[in-house]
Amino acid sequence: MSTSDSRIPVGILGITGTVGQRFAQLLSVHSQFRVVAVGASERSAGKTNAATGLTIVACDPVHFGNCKVVFSALDASVAGEIEQAMADAGIHVLSNAKNFRMDHRVPLVVPTANPHHLDALKNFNTGKGFIITNANCSTTGLVVPLKALIDKFGPIAQLHVTTQQAISGAGYPGVPSLDILENIVPFISGEEEKMEIEPRKILGPGFVGDKFVLDDTLRISATCTRVPIIDGHTMHVSLQFKAAEKPSVEDIIKCLESYSTEAQSLKCPSAPSRSIIVHTEANRPQPRVDRDLERGFAVSVGRIRKCNLLDLKFTLLVHNTILGAAGSSVLNAEIAHAKGLF
Amino acid sequence: MSTSDSRIPVGILGITGTVGQRFAQLLSVHSQFRVVAVGASERSAGKTNAATGLTIVACDPVHFGNCKVVFSALDASVAGEIEQAMADAGIHVLSNAKNFRMDHRVPLVVPTANPHHLDALKNFNTGKGFIITNANCSTTGLVVPLKALIDKFGPIAQLHVTTQQAISGAGYPGVPSLDILENIVPFISGEEEKMEIEPRKILGPGFVGDKFVLDDTLRISATCTRVPIIDGHTMHVSLQFKAAEKPSVEDIIKCLESYSTEAQSLKCPSAPSRSIIVHTEANRPQPRVDRDLERGFAVSVGRIRKCNLLDLKFTLLVHNTILGAAGSSVLNAEIAHAKGLF
Amino acid sequence: MSTSDSRIPVGILGITGTVGQRFAQLLSVHSQFRVVAVGASERSAGKTNAATGLTIVACDPVHFGNCKVVFSALDASVAGEIEQAMADAGIHVLSNAKNFRMDHRVPLVVPTANPHHLDALKNFNTGKGFIITNANCSTTGLVVPLKALIDKFGPIAQLHVTTQQAISGAGYPGVPSLDILENIVPFISGEEEKMEIEPRKILGPGFVGDKFVLDDTLRISATCTRVPIIDGHTMHVSLQFKAAEKPSVEDIIKCLESYSTEAQSLKCPSAPSRSIIVHTEANRPQPRVDRDLERGFAVSVGRIRKCNLLDLKFTLLVHNTILGAAGSSVLNAEIAHAKGLF
Amino acid sequence: MSTSDSRIPVGILGITGTVGQRFAQLLSVHSQFRVVAVGASERSAGKTNAATGLTIVACDPVHFGNCKVVFSALDASVAGEIEQAMADAGIHVLSNAKNFRMDHRVPLVVPTANPHHLDALKNFNTGKGFIITNANCSTTGLVVPLKALIDKFGPIAQLHVTTQQAISGAGYPGVPSLDILENIVPFISGEEEKMEIEPRKILGPGFVGDKFVLDDTLRISATCTRVPIIDGHTMHVSLQFKAAEKPSVEDIIKCLESYSTEAQSLKCPSAPSRSIIVHTEANRPQPRVDRDLERGFAVSVGRIRKCNLLDLKFTLLVHNTILGAAGSSVLNAEIAHAKGLF
Repeated sequence: MSTSDSRIPVGILGITGTVGQRFAQLLSVHSQFRVVAVGASERSAGKTNAATGLTIVACDPVHFGNCKVVFSALDASVAGEIEQAMADAGIHVLSNAKNFRMDHRVPLVVPTANPHHLDALKNFNTGKGFIITNANCSTTGLVVPLKALIDKFGPIAQLHVTTQQAISGAGYPGVPSLDILENIVPFISGEEEKMEIEPRKILGPGFVGDKFVLDDTLRISATCTRVPIIDGHTMHVSLQFKAAEKPSVEDIIKCLESYSTEAQSLKCPSAPSRSIIVHTEANRPQPRVDRDLERGFAVSVGRIRKCNLLDLKFTLLVHNTILGAAGSSVLNAEIAHAKGLF
Repeated sequence: MSTSDSRIPVGILGITGTVGQRFAQLLSVHSQFRVVAVGASERSAGKTNAATGLTIVACDPVHFGNCKVVFSALDASVAGEIEQAMADAGIHVLSNAKNFRMDHRVPLVVPTANPHHLDALKNFNTGKGFIITNANCSTTGLVVPLKALIDKFGPIAQLHVTTQQAISGAGYPGVPSLDILENIVPFISGEEEKMEIEPRKILGPGFVGDKFVLDDTLRISATCTRVPIIDGHTMHVSLQFKAAEKPSVEDIIKCLESYSTEAQSLKCPSAPSRSIIVHTEANRPQPRVDRDLERGFAVSVGRIRKCNLLDLKFTLLVHNTILGAAGSSVLNAEIAHAKGLF
Repeated sequence: MSTSDSRIPVGILGITGTVGQRFAQLLSVHSQFRVVAVGASERSAGKTNAATGLTIVACDPVHFGNCKVVFSALDASVAGEIEQAMADAGIHVLSNAKNFRMDHRVPLVVPTANPHHLDALKNFNTGKGFIITNANCSTTGLVVPLKALIDKFGPIAQLHVTTQQAISGAGYPGVPSLDILENIVPFISGEEEKMEIEPRKILGPGFVGDKFVLDDTLRISATCTRVPIIDGHTMHVSLQFKAAEKPSVEDIIKCLESYSTEAQSLKCPSAPSRSIIVHTEANRPQPRVDRDLERGFAVSVGRIRKCNLLDLKFTLLVHNTILGAAGSSVLNAEIAHAKGLF
Repeated sequence: MSTSDSRIPVGILGITGTVGQRFAQLLSVHSQFRVVAVGASERSAGKTNAATGLTIVACDPVHFGNCKVVFSALDASVAGEIEQAMADAGIHVLSNAKNFRMDHRVPLVVPTANPHHLDALKNFNTGKGFIITNANCSTTGLVVPLKALIDKFGPIAQLHVTTQQAISGAGYPGVPSLDILENIVPFISGEEEKMEIEPRKILGPGFVGDKFVLDDTLRISATCTRVPIIDGHTMHVSLQFKAAEKPSVEDIIKCLESYSTEAQSLKCPSAPSRSIIVHTEANRPQPRVDRDLERGFAVSVGRIRKCNLLDLKFTLLVHNTILGAAGSSVLNAEIAHAKGLF
């Protein structure tokens, strides 16, 4: 890379894990960012990271002084302390970890749902780096069509969601094959709690007064299961709008198909041309068939129909390791950059 | 078999399909029934059926004159006509087909849920054979814990259910492997409709006046999906009781664990010792691990917990080709026999 | 398409099957060919083919008069007659069907193994179209490294091969999921016979006198199995050279890595940059990980080591629906075009 | 258990692993043995083992003083030292570990192949306990039909075998699901080496002079792969007899079907009624369908046919965690007991 490279120098924290590797893949050919430092645990420090060709360093700000931004794929057990240290050192942190997601002063952003939440950062004069978090993988898929629907038809009062989540969501080595081959595990620790609270922050009014405020209408009941799928979380949703007047199925389809976000209008390089893809075939979306649409940055929605109990039912699919993880952080960074935040 | 065999002579209709073969397996060593005739389409007539050693005949009552009872695994496209002809000829029909399930004068019986519905037949003086249907495989699993809960805590007003159904439910050749390996198909034709109506008949008050009456409180919203599992349908349920006073999770567990039915009290040979098995480990039931409990005649229930929206959530598992299909018909026949109906 | 489009007009026979669809995918954006007609059975004629936007016609030469070349994905039951009729009408046929593979006057060509066999066609003055066949999917993967080895180290005398073949090789609906989920089927009808004879034609001296001649040194013993893999045939090979002097493992690796073919030297657009990729990690190649290398046009080889009985063992992987089927025909056509045969 | 229980008191070493749990399952209802002690690492000591109801102790002979026999499911990293200590303390050891398999004075016994190797122990007057090892899981399946063939047709000179091994062979957590779902791993560390040497001891002449002697005719080339199967190792074999006169396929079938061993003649309770089951359907044996035949104690053989290169080819299947592991040790103990060795 020549010294005249005008791309923003960035680092990756937690380079050896599956999300870290995905960061390396997405950033290795990026038009706006160039990776200049990669960090992992002390145990890996000194080794060469194949994807970037860089020598791995410990996750200490002293080794990331030449970075304007770091992307964090750190495990929650260490992410809190390290990310705070990076921010204190003036480095912006784009984090996939859960630690700061519900922090009142940290934006929780799904790039194709609530990129406007980043605007609040313009008024933060802390002299430190920002911490920007992306959401849990399942939450990410869920909120994209919800945002489209709320924008058009008003608040959602009740929502039931049952997920069928891919094994890649558990990292590596992750789920033992003896547990999941020709089997379903109807429980993922902590996942239902995240899905019941994170959407309320993402779909909330944003930063009001001195904190990010939750959507106080939306109540969610989530059931999360693990299934023998490599990539792609499928979710089945039933929901009820608050308003008495209900949209038709045609209204819903039209709303979702015409949905567009700042990711597109700001011409971010990773943005999908369509944030939501509506499937009208009865048996779609399917994870193996549809997860890679729009390079994994789109959410597929299908089986849109009336619910016997609430207003509406549909099935959605999100690529859990692209839009649902590293891809969100990268696209969030592109949006933040386009907004002049870096 | 000696001529002094006192077991009831029975036939199997549709012997060549997967459910027919399961009938042959369950009946080949039965203490109360002996298979004396097996039928299939004209195309198979004349061949020898390996499981029973009998020559296959066409499904015409003339070939089943020595049978008191026939078990029908016929396809819905032909079941209606043939089953009616058998009953008209004075032969009792235990059917796995959907054709007569919602017929007002035909009992729809899950043996460990509503065996008392069979009592109505005692007053039927038609001079013909009875038709007794069992339910759709998913419905079967669902209604067993529901019956226990309704008996104890009163009517259920609302119920959301999302299923993860095994490929064996589609018969053979059934689901192409290219459709389901490392994939989910979020649609099964006609399945959601069955799950939304059949439970209301099974859980209804039974035969009142001149017909079987539906439960008029229960409303159901079902989402049905196909997953890469050989046997065992998993379902995730959220429900709300009608009553204002709500049972605790402990009340629910106690209710389900203490549930017993006529299948047990009548000492039917196929009856499970426990109709419901409650799992308290957070990650159970699992289809590969738990489907064969009680020889496939039990329903497993786990993850019993409060719902954020309704009263209660839980996960259940039923062996779809045993209790969910042929096993129900066999156990229904045992109950009918114990009640003196044959 | 403007009338000034200089690309060669081609047709696809058997457009509705899986190989036909793969042809459509590979040819829809091709720089040298443009699809102007698509054929299928009478039953599909008149429908619109989504991938090409063309109306499906019956597979009669009368409907393919504007085609210089047709790509045939026809089933063997009809391929023989139709392909012959096309050739008789002056249309060149690139066929994936087995019917003419062992015909003495028809080249059987794996594009990255024996493209020079096409040269014989230059001397065919029949006034008709050529028929050019590609090999069985497993054979295709096998012969690529064999050709590299034979070119360098001389004839192979004995070869054992055991395959683990993907379900996509059986087409759609193909293998029922009940047969293959969490299972292996140790038999594929006719497959071992093809693998034991086709390589002898491909690796033979080519057209000598009035016919294509078989390699008379090579003897093959093949065992073919079906495994629960979507795409990618894996094969385990043990072989013995005829020569007394044996190459070392390092010699073998060097030979395979430096292998290049006319597909590359003729700069065919679909040619892989490397026809063979050598893996040195002990646990590679793996079908899900490596099948898409070089867009599915490369053969991966790994675990190169001494055999306890013969000279050499290795594991190879080929993408069965790309290089192993439609891709071979397309690349064969590109080579034939580069050689001036059309 | 009453004090008058005449069953032999036994212990299990390594109770917490998958093989240890299988031992507990096989021995918990055994007619000749009763489990009186269970051992594991210090970390697990003091906990209650659910399967046996016993408190786990450390694997020190002092805690197994009331045992005549111990079954060892220990990891190879600790098995050597502990098993030797048990034997030194006068306790007989039936071991599934690899440590002593190739020891010149320790029998390596597959119960339905070479139970006569146990006879040598009658002349061992060491005053210590015996160590009896069972073979590697793949080796176990392979040698059963080989022994039948060698007994009838004489020595085997050459043998190629390629395996498709189940994930349960790697224990728990074992193979990560991300490595094996819709994938094949063409390498299992150390497995090929075991398969190339262990059969030569098992099929050798037994204890001659002062040591167990290897078969000096048999040469084996093994290729071992991991496939997405829960239980059941499938193997594809090509072999050549030493003798010039070759048996026909019918001879082979007759030989395998009539094969019987001391396990049967000594009426051991775990012995299968048939040690080898010959399948004549072209597409069998299949792991999911056939692995549980004879409670997992049989080896299934199918696709018996001529080889293009050697004399004979066939496919075999063994249940890797029953006959291939714990079941062999249990059946070996039954045979040793019947021979009066305890």
